[in-house]
Amino acid sequence: MVPAKRKPPAVTRRQRASAHATPRNDDTILLEFSMSPLTQGASVGRYVSRSLEIIDQSNLPYRLNPMGTVIEGPWDAVLGVVKSCWERMKEDCDRVSTIVKIDYRKGKTGRLESKIASVEKTLGRKLKT
Amino acid sequence: MVPAKRKPPAVTRRQRASAHATPRNDDTILLEFSMSPLTQGASVGRYVSRSLEIIDQSNLPYRLNPMGTVIEGPWDAVLGVVKSCWERMKEDCDRVSTIVKIDYRKGKTGRLESKIASVEKTLGRKLKT
Amino acid sequence: MVPAKRKPPAVTRRQRASAHATPRNDDTILLEFSMSPLTQGASVGRYVSRSLEIIDQSNLPYRLNPMGTVIEGPWDAVLGVVKSCWERMKEDCDRVSTIVKIDYRKGKTGRLESKIASVEKTLGRKLKT
Amino acid sequence: MVPAKRKPPAVTRRQRASAHATPRNDDTILLEFSMSPLTQGASVGRYVSRSLEIIDQSNLPYRLNPMGTVIEGPWDAVLGVVKSCWERMKEDCDRVSTIVKIDYRKGKTGRLESKIASVEKTLGRKLKT
Repeated sequence: MVPAKRKPPAVTRRQRASAHATPRNDDTILLEFSMSPLTQGASVGRYVSRSLEIIDQSNLPYRLNPMGTVIEGPWDAVLGVVKSCWERMKEDCDRVSTIVKIDYRKGKTGRLESKIASVEKTLGRKLKT
Repeated sequence: MVPAKRKPPAVTRRQRASAHATPRNDDTILLEFSMSPLTQGASVGRYVSRSLEIIDQSNLPYRLNPMGTVIEGPWDAVLGVVKSCWERMKEDCDRVSTIVKIDYRKGKTGRLESKIASVEKTLGRKLKT
Repeated sequence: MVPAKRKPPAVTRRQRASAHATPRNDDTILLEFSMSPLTQGASVGRYVSRSLEIIDQSNLPYRLNPMGTVIEGPWDAVLGVVKSCWERMKEDCDRVSTIVKIDYRKGKTGRLESKIASVEKTLGRKLKT
Repeated sequence: MVPAKRKPPAVTRRQRASAHATPRNDDTILLEFSMSPLTQGASVGRYVSRSLEIIDQSNLPYRLNPMGTVIEGPWDAVLGVVKSCWERMKEDCDRVSTIVKIDYRKGKTGRLESKIASVEKTLGRKLKT
């Protein structure tokens, strides 16, 4: 997307600050969401499964846990997956409730694994994951 | 679900209500979010104020409360505002935490006011809002 | 709020630090929650109203918004209200979903009003609340 | 807590099912939470590790994921763990932000594993967990 530049000019403080804001790594977020219909009774596994199908086919790295799914990627890609799940669910569910948590940390990727690894390293042992 | 009608009569109040359920309004969501830097210390009011500036200028109906802001509108418009706030905040905050709750109810709009009004009507008195 | 003191005794840095950590104000939290049954269909206002009845009778300061209720008080008192709402709801709802956000800031109270006021002061105008 | 029973009567399938709905199991909730200081900079792993130490020592079943920890147990036990983590964190963090999601389903336990298994069964394959 960013064309290669020949002979880069000297970099001023101001330019460095704005380079700081370049889109490359900045855009990666860690997002957890859970989405449920309020209109289909206590068993909503069937609807959650359809969301997981959409997430799995997005090719974004993800992890399913008992209370939600964590996806890593650029804002638009990840939020696009959440929107697709919502559009599918509202096809036959008249009320849909969604919770989203987003953790952005400048210049960091691979956090699906590294955040847990960091806690385990601090404690010096494996935790239940 | 709605059977086709031949020779549609003039539009009654009831029909107008059902037109309410066309895909156009279906897209309306109620979204609450809060977004904070983890890197700027305990006082984050300055950063929250910048988000409120963006929200206020979006011309979408909204309500600020002590723990977040509720916005009503179509998915793309509302999530676009959240993204704009995030992009502004990450310009000078290296870690940003965001919580989003989305409530979708088919064919309903004006819920910024109607949800509270409904609870007050049920209880037969005004509540603290 | 703090009465003026004549002839204050010498206060060491250590004493000031430990006074800072006294339990009195420390325990105050700002908590927002929303609680819904998944088993009662799209209209849950009746169940939300029962929660508001419990909150209103707790005598804790609170504010209802379109996506939840914000309560201020000590941890045990506020979480006790949330538990009471949950116990009432599970009497006739087989599945109940609850979201809680808690904001703790050392030594601060009256934040139901002051947080919004601070944003409005920064922006120099009233916002929609 | 459960008194020893002498000569237990024959238990029919129906009785076993209704015993399933007694207050004992009713109290089990699935709770996910994440808790972070806003005052310690971008790296909060050290503080999260202290929470995991408390969770791990509670002997309640739990699972750590990249965005939070899911604990299963009775309301008071699980919320007691959350409170302990908060009390530890506020010892040296002046502002602490906490998000809690609670999923209650009458008469169900073992959901740390069964919720994921149910989605995998519906889709007929393993998912990334």
